[in-house]
Amino acid sequence: MRALIFDLDGTLVDSVYPHTLAWQRSLLDFGLSCSAWAIHRRIGMSGKLLVKTIAREQHRRLSASDIEKLGRHHAQLFHKLAPIGIPLPGAVRLLAFLRKSKIPHGIATSGKHAEIKSSLKSLSLRPATIVIDGDMVSEVKPEPDLFLLCQQSLNVKRADCLVVGDAIWDIHAARRSGIQSVGLLSGGFGEQELYNAGAMRVYRDANALHQAINELGFE
Amino acid sequence: MRALIFDLDGTLVDSVYPHTLAWQRSLLDFGLSCSAWAIHRRIGMSGKLLVKTIAREQHRRLSASDIEKLGRHHAQLFHKLAPIGIPLPGAVRLLAFLRKSKIPHGIATSGKHAEIKSSLKSLSLRPATIVIDGDMVSEVKPEPDLFLLCQQSLNVKRADCLVVGDAIWDIHAARRSGIQSVGLLSGGFGEQELYNAGAMRVYRDANALHQAINELGFE
Repeated sequence: MRALIFDLDGTLVDSVYPHTLAWQRSLLDFGLSCSAWAIHRRIGMSGKLLVKTIAREQHRRLSASDIEKLGRHHAQLFHKLAPIGIPLPGAVRLLAFLRKSKIPHGIATSGKHAEIKSSLKSLSLRPATIVIDGDMVSEVKPEPDLFLLCQQSLNVKRADCLVVGDAIWDIHAARRSGIQSVGLLSGGFGEQELYNAGAMRVYRDANALHQAINELGFE
Repeated sequence: MRALIFDLDGTLVDSVYPHTLAWQRSLLDFGLSCSAWAIHRRIGMSGKLLVKTIAREQHRRLSASDIEKLGRHHAQLFHKLAPIGIPLPGAVRLLAFLRKSKIPHGIATSGKHAEIKSSLKSLSLRPATIVIDGDMVSEVKPEPDLFLLCQQSLNVKRADCLVVGDAIWDIHAARRSGIQSVGLLSGGFGEQELYNAGAMRVYRDANALHQAINELGFE
């Protein structure tokens, strides 16, 4: 194992719960009511697929312009609920350790550039850190494009990369990219859900992953 | 099977996620930072035990007055995040069905009387509905007192009652009361977590439970 590719929300920053409530409220303002837990389980996939899934359950069809408006409304509500990024336990220290140990690593997130600024800022990243966001590919998770672009930018073979994510959609996208993955509980998915999706291993959070870094094959 | 005892938050009303963020913020204002998912997994137990658990993890000790202040602060923030109660899918219809079918049922929640008013209102309960709240017993979940008082008020043998809850703490409290239980996913716990805790069966939400009511032994 030579390189790590991280998801952002729920993996490095504590943003899944405000994202959940922001989607619930923006959907409600659009006449679509959905339980918070059922939104929570869709966080991490593309916003477009999330709202399409929920509209389909309720036998509603949304136009492309509806979907765009919903996305903008969600972004505004999210910013109100979570005005500053809060790193998850161990995330900042793990990233600093990887830099010091010269272990190649990057971030690959479905989030759009403008929406992830405060999260990235909270992680004390160096300008050279590779960040692949939702504006840089045509299809985000659960499609594999984000992880593949990150892997190519890191210039490390797929077999030597490991994806770290908190959502089923990270694990699915990793499988489809041909990159192995581990799950973290810090986004609120259940352990068994992540194993069922295909995670090789599930840890509590970035801190626990840091402690276990050697058992994953990193020297 | 003759009677049903319901938990409230996450089982009948969609309040677990605002409770999670309200606890996270009130703890943060007290200098205790805790990830949202780790709070989420403690929702449904007594607020006192929740804050004690989190303080212990961070090697802090809280006085009884600290714990009370935290609880009040949480209640205020929760009311701002969730000013009205929102029933979970199928909850209102299930309760109406039980009344019509004359199946004895009650609600047993760790929440205090003043905090659960808007949730109860959203469920269109009749005044005669038995509601056991956190002010009526000395110890709430995971202690069995709430469920036992509800069972006695329903005047149905423990062996003929079934607890319905969304949290590990409901399932634990039910086990300790000698009453069997089923879990619902509508509070955001994982299916396997609820089975591991001891649930006989796990359903998606109140709507799915309603569809399955005969397979549980209700005529």
